[in-house]
Amino acid sequence: MMKIKISLSVLLFLMLLLIGCSKKVEEPKRNPLPSWNEGTTKTSIINFVKDVTDKNSPNYVEPEERIAAFDNDGNLWSEQPMYFQLFFTIDRVKALAAKHPEWKKEQPFKAVLENDMKTLVASGEHGLLKLVMATHAGMTTTEFERIVKNWVATAKHPRFERSFTDLVYQPMLELLDYLRANEFKTFIVSGGGIEFMRPLTSGLYGIPPEQVVGSSIKTKFEIIDGEPQIIRLPEIDFIDDKAGKPIGIHKFIGRKPIFASGNSDGDLQMLQYTASNKMKSFMLYLHHTDAEREWAYDRESHIGRLGKGLDEAKAKGWTVIDMKNDWKVIYPFQ
Amino acid sequence: MMKIKISLSVLLFLMLLLIGCSKKVEEPKRNPLPSWNEGTTKTSIINFVKDVTDKNSPNYVEPEERIAAFDNDGNLWSEQPMYFQLFFTIDRVKALAAKHPEWKKEQPFKAVLENDMKTLVASGEHGLLKLVMATHAGMTTTEFERIVKNWVATAKHPRFERSFTDLVYQPMLELLDYLRANEFKTFIVSGGGIEFMRPLTSGLYGIPPEQVVGSSIKTKFEIIDGEPQIIRLPEIDFIDDKAGKPIGIHKFIGRKPIFASGNSDGDLQMLQYTASNKMKSFMLYLHHTDAEREWAYDRESHIGRLGKGLDEAKAKGWTVIDMKNDWKVIYPFQ
Repeated sequence: MMKIKISLSVLLFLMLLLIGCSKKVEEPKRNPLPSWNEGTTKTSIINFVKDVTDKNSPNYVEPEERIAAFDNDGNLWSEQPMYFQLFFTIDRVKALAAKHPEWKKEQPFKAVLENDMKTLVASGEHGLLKLVMATHAGMTTTEFERIVKNWVATAKHPRFERSFTDLVYQPMLELLDYLRANEFKTFIVSGGGIEFMRPLTSGLYGIPPEQVVGSSIKTKFEIIDGEPQIIRLPEIDFIDDKAGKPIGIHKFIGRKPIFASGNSDGDLQMLQYTASNKMKSFMLYLHHTDAEREWAYDRESHIGRLGKGLDEAKAKGWTVIDMKNDWKVIYPFQ
Repeated sequence: MMKIKISLSVLLFLMLLLIGCSKKVEEPKRNPLPSWNEGTTKTSIINFVKDVTDKNSPNYVEPEERIAAFDNDGNLWSEQPMYFQLFFTIDRVKALAAKHPEWKKEQPFKAVLENDMKTLVASGEHGLLKLVMATHAGMTTTEFERIVKNWVATAKHPRFERSFTDLVYQPMLELLDYLRANEFKTFIVSGGGIEFMRPLTSGLYGIPPEQVVGSSIKTKFEIIDGEPQIIRLPEIDFIDDKAGKPIGIHKFIGRKPIFASGNSDGDLQMLQYTASNKMKSFMLYLHHTDAEREWAYDRESHIGRLGKGLDEAKAKGWTVIDMKNDWKVIYPFQ
């Protein structure tokens, strides 16, 4: 056999390059989901992923069909004591109040300005819509993005006295990473405003704007002083909730997911739609059972109500996360 | 320096592994755009791509911001003598006529059944909409996908007597590949029906359904016999043309492209929107100048009219493809 001499440093260099090359292939095999306690929930997720990514399995799914859809509020970050976008809306009403003296007499603006939550809640969906239109429309999309980013940079959650963006679920961040390491394409499919989420999702979840589906208001295109602008109009375009979720998935993604994750009855149709996939699919509900570290709520909650979904999960054998027992930590800062 | 002995075969093996690893990095450098003649058009495309992908360039753009938007009809495949989706619509009217005896007396169905193109054209947008609603709605999305695929598998273009899917532009396929090799994410942004295109775009262009933006009709979610279905409704949801294109891009993609490619005045707003990107951007018009190999048309054409766009391209220094002189071949089969 022919032998040649090579310096150790050259050999080490070659081997280091090889390690660099193989890193991507190795990653998925490292201990996935470290913040999840061992148990049936974690096992069922891992078994599903192994099954659909194993080329020798009858349930193998091609990478391009590995679509995973995640609800956002109460599923990737908290939603109590009210949706974070509602905190934003209330802060915007207060910030804009000086320019709208009429709001002192007009409901539900008056209730917001007087911190009268009871009247605000009583104004219902119609009242809420008025607040959203007054605060989310009438500016360019660029300006709205700036407003959202500025708010997020300073606003604090009342219970934790931390940024709202700190209140993302560490175990779900790991789940998103784990799925992506297994060539899943991860999407958000949320009832929240698409333009409220998009400036945040890349940084928070590694999900780019083009993989965010949400509720929207209408817009128009205009050239203002030679500059093309998209202007936000005070008119609902699409509500991405309940039966709207499969419609939003079909409209924006155009394929049926094989993995869907939600936490409320508003996610039920998305899970049903995913369950109807001819390919093997996985339906995951997050049950908020941890009043101490987060919140505990389900059938009787006004926000994130989960009743029908729990029943259907039980009947169909879907996986339900018991937050208190399945998660070692809730938030990354804990 | 410490020396160790290593067999040549081991060294070769290590080096082969390294070559395998680096292959992906090397690929973009191979002769790109072989079906494009040398000249200013090809050079301007390549120079732009080199500039925004060079980390040392002041115009460097991060991969996640490398969004490229392509019109479809007359830009990735032909659109003459009429949009291919209109051929599909006419064939569907004929296929469904037996179930609709009333169509024999009702315009514009009567015109279609009698091959009376003059009356059909005279029925205008309203007439066309009637045909589209009668043929594109009233079924599940799964069923519609099947109908589109079946039609494409058998229908023939009248001039070339070939599948419509043969009439894609070879130089544009190469451009899509070249951009993707340089970590661009390629999207279709077309006035055509989103659900007409999506079953075809992966196979034709390597563009997955979730990267297709187009016109749409409304849908509803229903559980029929225990099976979740999305039903197509005879009502316009969104028209992705002219000012609708930047709106569609903003809605579906949520970022401004740095590369936009179109062929008609219907693409002008998309190109204007792209030109307003703070990052360096590239605007490309395809001018149909080849009556012999394809078609020649611009300002006076009823389909794919290009007048304002040509003027603005000239005024702003956008790149215009002269099909006859810039392209070595038009279709892959040539």
